[in-house]
Amino acid sequence: MKENRRSFLKLGATSAAVGMLGHATQAAAQEPQIGAITPLAAKLGLRLATFAQRKDDKPRVGVVLDDGRIIDIGAEAQRQKQKLVFDPGSMLSLIASGDQGVAQAHSLAERASLLKMASPTVNQVRLLSPIPRPHSNIYAVGWNYLDHFEEGKDARADKTVSTYPSNPVFFSKAVNTMNGPFDSIPYDASNSTMIDWEAELAVIIGQDGRNISEEQAMKHVFGFATYNDTTARDVQQKRHGGQWFKGKSLDGHGPMGPWIVTTAGLSLDDARIICRVNGVEKQNASYKQMYFKIPRIIAELSRGLTLRAGDIIATGTPSGVGFARKPQEFMKPGDIMETEITGIGILRNTIKAEA
Amino acid sequence: MKENRRSFLKLGATSAAVGMLGHATQAAAQEPQIGAITPLAAKLGLRLATFAQRKDDKPRVGVVLDDGRIIDIGAEAQRQKQKLVFDPGSMLSLIASGDQGVAQAHSLAERASLLKMASPTVNQVRLLSPIPRPHSNIYAVGWNYLDHFEEGKDARADKTVSTYPSNPVFFSKAVNTMNGPFDSIPYDASNSTMIDWEAELAVIIGQDGRNISEEQAMKHVFGFATYNDTTARDVQQKRHGGQWFKGKSLDGHGPMGPWIVTTAGLSLDDARIICRVNGVEKQNASYKQMYFKIPRIIAELSRGLTLRAGDIIATGTPSGVGFARKPQEFMKPGDIMETEITGIGILRNTIKAEA
Repeated sequence: MKENRRSFLKLGATSAAVGMLGHATQAAAQEPQIGAITPLAAKLGLRLATFAQRKDDKPRVGVVLDDGRIIDIGAEAQRQKQKLVFDPGSMLSLIASGDQGVAQAHSLAERASLLKMASPTVNQVRLLSPIPRPHSNIYAVGWNYLDHFEEGKDARADKTVSTYPSNPVFFSKAVNTMNGPFDSIPYDASNSTMIDWEAELAVIIGQDGRNISEEQAMKHVFGFATYNDTTARDVQQKRHGGQWFKGKSLDGHGPMGPWIVTTAGLSLDDARIICRVNGVEKQNASYKQMYFKIPRIIAELSRGLTLRAGDIIATGTPSGVGFARKPQEFMKPGDIMETEITGIGILRNTIKAEA
Repeated sequence: MKENRRSFLKLGATSAAVGMLGHATQAAAQEPQIGAITPLAAKLGLRLATFAQRKDDKPRVGVVLDDGRIIDIGAEAQRQKQKLVFDPGSMLSLIASGDQGVAQAHSLAERASLLKMASPTVNQVRLLSPIPRPHSNIYAVGWNYLDHFEEGKDARADKTVSTYPSNPVFFSKAVNTMNGPFDSIPYDASNSTMIDWEAELAVIIGQDGRNISEEQAMKHVFGFATYNDTTARDVQQKRHGGQWFKGKSLDGHGPMGPWIVTTAGLSLDDARIICRVNGVEKQNASYKQMYFKIPRIIAELSRGLTLRAGDIIATGTPSGVGFARKPQEFMKPGDIMETEITGIGILRNTIKAEA
């Protein structure tokens, strides 16, 4: 991690140490969660978050600036007397509004930034998943890093697939798996004792399409987010006849955030996919190791299946998952799972026993 | 099929023969589609449809009477000066409104029926899927009739699972698979030439819940619909590493309808699950042959996963699919797939080559 690419937040309550998390204390919702924000790759890029001012407030869409301030788009539009082409309470509405909506958000935030408007920082609000309630299951890709495919061979119940598939493996995660970047992940030992991490890059679709060609695919991408395809291995592997869906679909087992970075804001070639558990690094791979790249994934997935603006695709996890370790490692209540995509940001989720 | 349980529609344009379909003419949208309606099992039951008066009208929720008239709930509420607790343009809203909403629909329809209000019949409107745009993927159960599990053994690519699973197999179908009861199903030979039928009973969830017990499960059911889990076998079996999701998720490959019958309106023990292709019967099984019954399915599916009002569960198909026949049979453009659950009604979908 290059420290010089990071602009540490100049906030009284925030210390750089928070960003490094070498300790396993349970983070409270009000505690500062975000220690550093990587500047965007290009000025045209945007960090788009969904947040609530107070715990039970309605979600609002905000633009997160490099200095950590979050600009409430709805409030700012009112102040600047601009009529929005989208509902500022809904990221799905903003995404569906296309270039026009994004341009509005961009200019509103830029003006607010220039005017040095007093805005809360990301550590003074509650960040939710950028898309708190997806309008469909999350699309997910399996075995998309060769080393992860290889590492799992011995541990898998299903021995049929021993050579790497020539097409991406697709499955889905239920809508209720969606979780916030700093929310806890429910743990119920009576259902699963094999909760595993899977750090992933999530792609957010920005434009509807079916039978999208690889050449056109990136035009259908709105942006990227950090994602963790949290998985109940015992349920995935053994309990439901070889189909992964149920073991991938427990409530809250799919945190996303801390915001969406629009395509212009991120250089994928530099991106690393990282997972730490209680501060110990478990996964760390380059985007370049991804086997089926995003254009291929979109082309294959959209064959005969319409992708819609706001759809989410989790693009697969690299090696280092707990299931493939010897001995195997799984998370238990109190553990802190940290997921990072460099250039986007960090999720920090605590495993929490259900009452 | 007991003819004396059916009350044939007394409509000039409708002949009994339409209900029996011994011919393979392509049914136009305006042609009478429904020849007979089975009376409901109990007076408290309701047939709830989503329909449009003309092709591009906004969808509306209606109650279908035994005589084939469809009562537009929104219009009837206005006429009877009743304030509805749900949006009469959305079945999901009606389902979410719970007992109060259903009681409103029931009393409005009953009064309209008694007053012999002039209403269109189901053959004079366009019936859509009762839930045209589900708020999550459709939950689906695999291998839920023993004879279907056995028949497919030889043909399956994955030989790992040779003994029947002790828990239901779950997978999901993408939101865009949803299709209307009489709409065409897209066919693209460049993607799949193995389009197969799977007649199924769909369960519509009426009440949110997680970790639902078998004893409580039926309280979470709103009603039932006829469903076809149409499947691209080549995509399901061979193309995506053994996960069924993509082959189950082509656009329009999941027609549902022709309406939802609420739980009180259907006696499941009498229900038969039937599929005909071009008038030739391919599947015909009793609900009693279902292996994991609905309470078990709901209990297993809801472990750690919140089911929401309006969620749809396709409960699996009996034997007789094309994939397991010797020689194998698949559908091609022009074929008519008819799916029936006795006591609910018939879907009739034409396979149609994409332009």
